[in-house]
Amino acid sequence: MSPEISASPGKGELCLALSGGVGGAKLALGLARVLEPQQLVVVANTGDDFEHLGMHVAPDLDTVMYTLAGLADTQTGWGRAGESWNFLAALEALGGETWFRLGDGDLALHVERTRRLRGGETLSEVTEAFCARLGVRSRIIPMSDEPVRTLVLTVDGELAFQHYFVRERCEPAVCGFRFSGIEAAAPSPGLAAVLQHRGLGAVVICPSNPFVSVDPILAIDGVTAALRVSKAPLVAVSPIVGGTALKGPAAKMMAELDMPTTAAAVARHYRGRQLLDGFVLDRADAALAEEIESTGVATLVTDTVMVTLEDREVLAREVLAFAERLAL
Amino acid sequence: MSPEISASPGKGELCLALSGGVGGAKLALGLARVLEPQQLVVVANTGDDFEHLGMHVAPDLDTVMYTLAGLADTQTGWGRAGESWNFLAALEALGGETWFRLGDGDLALHVERTRRLRGGETLSEVTEAFCARLGVRSRIIPMSDEPVRTLVLTVDGELAFQHYFVRERCEPAVCGFRFSGIEAAAPSPGLAAVLQHRGLGAVVICPSNPFVSVDPILAIDGVTAALRVSKAPLVAVSPIVGGTALKGPAAKMMAELDMPTTAAAVARHYRGRQLLDGFVLDRADAALAEEIESTGVATLVTDTVMVTLEDREVLAREVLAFAERLAL
Repeated sequence: MSPEISASPGKGELCLALSGGVGGAKLALGLARVLEPQQLVVVANTGDDFEHLGMHVAPDLDTVMYTLAGLADTQTGWGRAGESWNFLAALEALGGETWFRLGDGDLALHVERTRRLRGGETLSEVTEAFCARLGVRSRIIPMSDEPVRTLVLTVDGELAFQHYFVRERCEPAVCGFRFSGIEAAAPSPGLAAVLQHRGLGAVVICPSNPFVSVDPILAIDGVTAALRVSKAPLVAVSPIVGGTALKGPAAKMMAELDMPTTAAAVARHYRGRQLLDGFVLDRADAALAEEIESTGVATLVTDTVMVTLEDREVLAREVLAFAERLAL
Repeated sequence: MSPEISASPGKGELCLALSGGVGGAKLALGLARVLEPQQLVVVANTGDDFEHLGMHVAPDLDTVMYTLAGLADTQTGWGRAGESWNFLAALEALGGETWFRLGDGDLALHVERTRRLRGGETLSEVTEAFCARLGVRSRIIPMSDEPVRTLVLTVDGELAFQHYFVRERCEPAVCGFRFSGIEAAAPSPGLAAVLQHRGLGAVVICPSNPFVSVDPILAIDGVTAALRVSKAPLVAVSPIVGGTALKGPAAKMMAELDMPTTAAAVARHYRGRQLLDGFVLDRADAALAEEIESTGVATLVTDTVMVTLEDREVLAREVLAFAERLAL
C-alpha cells in the first residue's frame, strides 16, 4: 500500500472539506491530489457571493474551482493565471465600478453562470457543469443553492462582505457578522447527501476564516447538527499561525472581537459549537497544544504553511491520517 | 472662409445623419470631422440590438460610437482596436455561446450599459454618458429608447437579425423583414427634437444597408412623415458600388428580393418612400445617374469608397455641399 492510500479514509470512504477561498483552496487541492476523485467533496462558502455589475460572482467557489482546475493564479491565490485586464480598463474609461477586480477570462465564468442561473439552473448544477468542462474530477459544491449573504457589522455600520473585504480593504473595525438569508437556505443537495452518507469518513475544516468562510457553512440549517451526530471525526486546520493569519483579515477580526489572536482561540471557536474532534496547528504554535488538548480536542502539530504543491499534499496526508486515527 | 465651413450647413444649422454600422460610421466620422460638434446628430439604428448572454448589445450604435471616439478597429470597422479575446476563449472552455464575437474591452460597454438600463436609465441617457466619457463631441443617439428588433424573413424561417447576420453568416435567402416592437417605439427624445428643429439643414442617409440599417429608423412612428415635411434636403449615399455592397449583405439581399443590385435600385427604394431629394453614387455607377435623375432625384457622382480618413472627410464635404445646393 502506498502512503497516499494508507493516509486516506478507508476505501470508499468520503472526505468532506469545508472551504473558503485562498487558504482553504490550498488544502482542498492537496486533498484532491492525494484522494481518489470520488473520495472528496469540497463544500465552498457562498456567503461571500454577490451581485456585481448585474452578475452573480462567487469568489470562494471560484477560487476552489480554479485551484483544483489548475487555472488559479499561484501568485495571488485567486483569479486566473495569465489573466488580462482589458475589460476593467475599458470599464474604468466608461466610469463604471472597478473596485472589484474582474479579469477578462474570469468574467466568462460570471457571465455564463448568471445566464444559466437566470435560465433556471441551480448554482450546484452550474458549478457541476463548469467543473466537468474544466476537468475538475473531485466534487466541488456550493454550501447552498439559496442566496446567503455575509454582512460584516462594523463600527461604521453594516457592510456587504465584498464591500468590507475588497472595497474597504477590511479597514473598518468588526463587531459581528450576520448571514442574511440563512434562515431560508437549505444545504445544497450535494452537501445534504454527503452529510447523510454512510461512507463519510472525515470532515476537514480547511484553514479558512472561521467567521466569514466557515461559519456561514456551519450556519446552514441542519449542517452543524448533522456534523455533531456524524461518526466521522471533524478536524480543523488552523488559519492562524504564530498569531497572524497567513491571508485575509482573520487575526484582525479576532483582535477586534476581543479574542486572543491565537490558534487556540480558533479551536475554542469550533469547540464551542461542539464540533471539534481534532485540531491541526503549526509548529510555531506548538506551545498551545496542551491548552487545546485540555478541552478534550486532539491536536496535531505539524508544518501547516503551504508554499509548494508538495506542502499541500503532505499536509493533506497528515490531516487525513490524523482523522483516521481519531476515527479508531 | 475655409472650404470646410463653406461646405457645411449654414452657421448654426444642423445635419442629421442616419447610420447603421461600419459603412455608415465611416461617413459619420467624416461628417464629425468637417462639422462643428453641435452641428451634427448621428442617429444609429438599434434594430440590430439584441440580448446576448444577459447583456444588451447594440452593434450599430457601438460601431458609430467607437468610430467617432477613435477607438474602432480600423481593419474590421467594428469592435475596438487592440482588442483581446480572453473572455471569449474562457467562455468557450466553459461551453458558452461564442458565435457572437465579444472582445474583452468591448464587453465593458455591454456590461455597464446593461447595468445602467436595468437601473432605469434610457438607452439615450446611457449613450450620452458613454460618449461624454469617451470624448465624442458630436451627438450620437439611438433611433428609439424602446426595443425594436429586426427579424429577417428567410426561406428557412424568421431569424433574429444577429442570428441571421453573424451566426448564419447571411446565408439563408431573404424574402422580407419585420421590425418587432416598431408600433410601440417612439423616436428617441434626441431624434424627435432634431426632426422638429428649425435649424435642421440637411439629412444624410449614410451608405448603410437600406433594409436592415436605415429602414428601421424610417419605420419609427413619425420619422418618415417628419422627414417628408422637413425643409431640409434629404440626401442618401449609395451603399452599392458597381453592383456590390462594400460591406455586408445589401447586394445579396437585393438579389434575393428580386431587385437589381444597383445604386439606382437603392435610390428607387428611398424615392418610393417619398423621401429622396439627392442621391450620391460612385463614379463606377455614373451611367446610372440619368436613370435616377429621371425620377426627379438630383444626383452627385463622386468617389464614394472611403479608404483613408481623408476620403471620409472629402466625401462628407461633398455630401454637405450637395445638400446645400439642393436647399437653395
